[in-house]
Amino acid sequence: MTEMEIGVIVGSLRADSFNRRLAKALQQMAPEGMRFKHLEIGDLPLYNQDDDANPAESVRRLKSEIQSADALLFVTPEYNRSIPGVLKNALDHASRPYGQSAWAGKPAGVVGASIGATGTALAQQHLRNVLAYLDVHVMGQPEVYLQVSDASFDGEGGIAREDTKQFLQGWMNTYAAWIKTFISR
Amino acid sequence: MTEMEIGVIVGSLRADSFNRRLAKALQQMAPEGMRFKHLEIGDLPLYNQDDDANPAESVRRLKSEIQSADALLFVTPEYNRSIPGVLKNALDHASRPYGQSAWAGKPAGVVGASIGATGTALAQQHLRNVLAYLDVHVMGQPEVYLQVSDASFDGEGGIAREDTKQFLQGWMNTYAAWIKTFISR
Amino acid sequence: MTEMEIGVIVGSLRADSFNRRLAKALQQMAPEGMRFKHLEIGDLPLYNQDDDANPAESVRRLKSEIQSADALLFVTPEYNRSIPGVLKNALDHASRPYGQSAWAGKPAGVVGASIGATGTALAQQHLRNVLAYLDVHVMGQPEVYLQVSDASFDGEGGIAREDTKQFLQGWMNTYAAWIKTFISR
Amino acid sequence: MTEMEIGVIVGSLRADSFNRRLAKALQQMAPEGMRFKHLEIGDLPLYNQDDDANPAESVRRLKSEIQSADALLFVTPEYNRSIPGVLKNALDHASRPYGQSAWAGKPAGVVGASIGATGTALAQQHLRNVLAYLDVHVMGQPEVYLQVSDASFDGEGGIAREDTKQFLQGWMNTYAAWIKTFISR
Repeated sequence: MTEMEIGVIVGSLRADSFNRRLAKALQQMAPEGMRFKHLEIGDLPLYNQDDDANPAESVRRLKSEIQSADALLFVTPEYNRSIPGVLKNALDHASRPYGQSAWAGKPAGVVGASIGATGTALAQQHLRNVLAYLDVHVMGQPEVYLQVSDASFDGEGGIAREDTKQFLQGWMNTYAAWIKTFISR
Repeated sequence: MTEMEIGVIVGSLRADSFNRRLAKALQQMAPEGMRFKHLEIGDLPLYNQDDDANPAESVRRLKSEIQSADALLFVTPEYNRSIPGVLKNALDHASRPYGQSAWAGKPAGVVGASIGATGTALAQQHLRNVLAYLDVHVMGQPEVYLQVSDASFDGEGGIAREDTKQFLQGWMNTYAAWIKTFISR
Repeated sequence: MTEMEIGVIVGSLRADSFNRRLAKALQQMAPEGMRFKHLEIGDLPLYNQDDDANPAESVRRLKSEIQSADALLFVTPEYNRSIPGVLKNALDHASRPYGQSAWAGKPAGVVGASIGATGTALAQQHLRNVLAYLDVHVMGQPEVYLQVSDASFDGEGGIAREDTKQFLQGWMNTYAAWIKTFISR
Repeated sequence: MTEMEIGVIVGSLRADSFNRRLAKALQQMAPEGMRFKHLEIGDLPLYNQDDDANPAESVRRLKSEIQSADALLFVTPEYNRSIPGVLKNALDHASRPYGQSAWAGKPAGVVGASIGATGTALAQQHLRNVLAYLDVHVMGQPEVYLQVSDASFDGEGGIAREDTKQFLQGWMNTYAAWIKTFISR
């Protein structure tokens, strides 16, 4: 079987974002045959329907990257009990113009890290609502609501705690099986 | 290929429920090889965790029916901008006790009919949140938010309007393909 | 000023429910002039629109109790990432028949306890959606997503930890001010 | 009584946006003593936590405008079954840095227009979730899920249909009473 390409979308623009670090840690756990590509969303303009006929270069690039990906991985914080605006802006851009969405049919996983205990559950719920509408096939279980701090990561960017590492390894294995369900049909 | 059995769960107990009628109309549109079974939820007690060790006979029956179904079809009205309590009660019962949920892994479709224009969109959104948690694999598109009246159905319980009939036939065909993705893996 | 009566609705029927215990602990913290009344929802039938014209005695009682309350307090667990079916069933009953809802205009607070870290945030979000539709005026902040165990309560049913006690006392004070905004207008 | 200033936030950047037109039509219906100010969100950068210590001038302006407003009016389309990213981005900006949110305590109304029948109900639901967290006091009823076309507006930017006009006038009157509840306390 040929390699699968996974487009990774991080919901925070912060340089030292915990979710960016979680995304990298997860990639280290992937089984053979999965290649990850970071999809940049920080260079997009604010979405304006008046630009549908003539989208910015960054929008064209993002849509092209999504379309060539076999699957998607969303790693996102929670802002104000919902999806970060910057992530929703990317979702909106790549869904437009009407009838030319780049999202439809992609299998995906959603995970999130936060410093608080509630742990991105509400952001992920709204994100799942949006992705269902966009016909992205999001894995249901296991959920990942990770409470993190600097101590959660080791010197190589991996996960420090053994039990968390094993939980995330299990998630990655289930995710790999999930996306293969859709790619091979 | 052997016949697939679809468990149908209607979110209203009303005898003449539009959603019950929609469920029946959809069944007439199914391709060969799909058998539908109505799963009764109106005879369940209110869920009480104290009964987990000794569930009512109706609860055992429902769980058994879900487990033997290959796929699920939810047809539900919207009550107060969310899932009817009676449907949520059934979801709760069959998810318990912890570790013995009957729902996990089933492919499913969600549709709904209402007399109002907003059309069950909010009920379906909450239902999709719950089903994702229960690891039920719900089809994303197309969505069915059907605005109905008595005139929507013909004398044989089918759909009266030709455009609505074709839309629902398209939904059924996509649904059949969706559940096969999971059954054959 | 005359005494205010607060109707308390607990989303779990379990006899030893943590949320029932939290409801009782909160009542001990109330300022002078607030009287609490437990509104029973465990004796309701499953809602069926066919019974709208002739509701069960338990439904009449619940609606009457809600109508005579000055404010409401919802204390609920999370079942399957949403409102317990038993609580949604009560919300549905007391909202019917169309035009005769008992809920409209009541000020309210929503809190919840769970043994898990995610802590009823998703249940409360769906509950707030429903209550907004029912025109119940729910206080926004502070949120109470309490993670509990048997050790959370002391011998008299109060809150064991001093910091949790102070947090909940602050919540109660804000709640008392919130409901007075609506009662005195 | 002195004049109340209402900050108006439109969720679409499109020049000829139906929601922008609805916002203007609503302002024509306001009772004496309400002054409306459009709060621009199209000139904000994408939110990045790294900029919290040194926010853009447009962010400072928006926060200052929100803080000086007595109440808020959100008029928003639905993008992909949720809040437009551009609106969520504005909500995120003005909520930051932690402890310095501009939103807390403002009374508000939420309305929306769309060309489809589902009518922004899902966007408004997510928006209400976010605003509850931000401690914005959002009116529950009546809901405004307006289905619009160019024919919905008359030559002066008012509402063309008499029944729609009366419905929106009723909404505006209830909104005016709602915000006074909070301003006078």
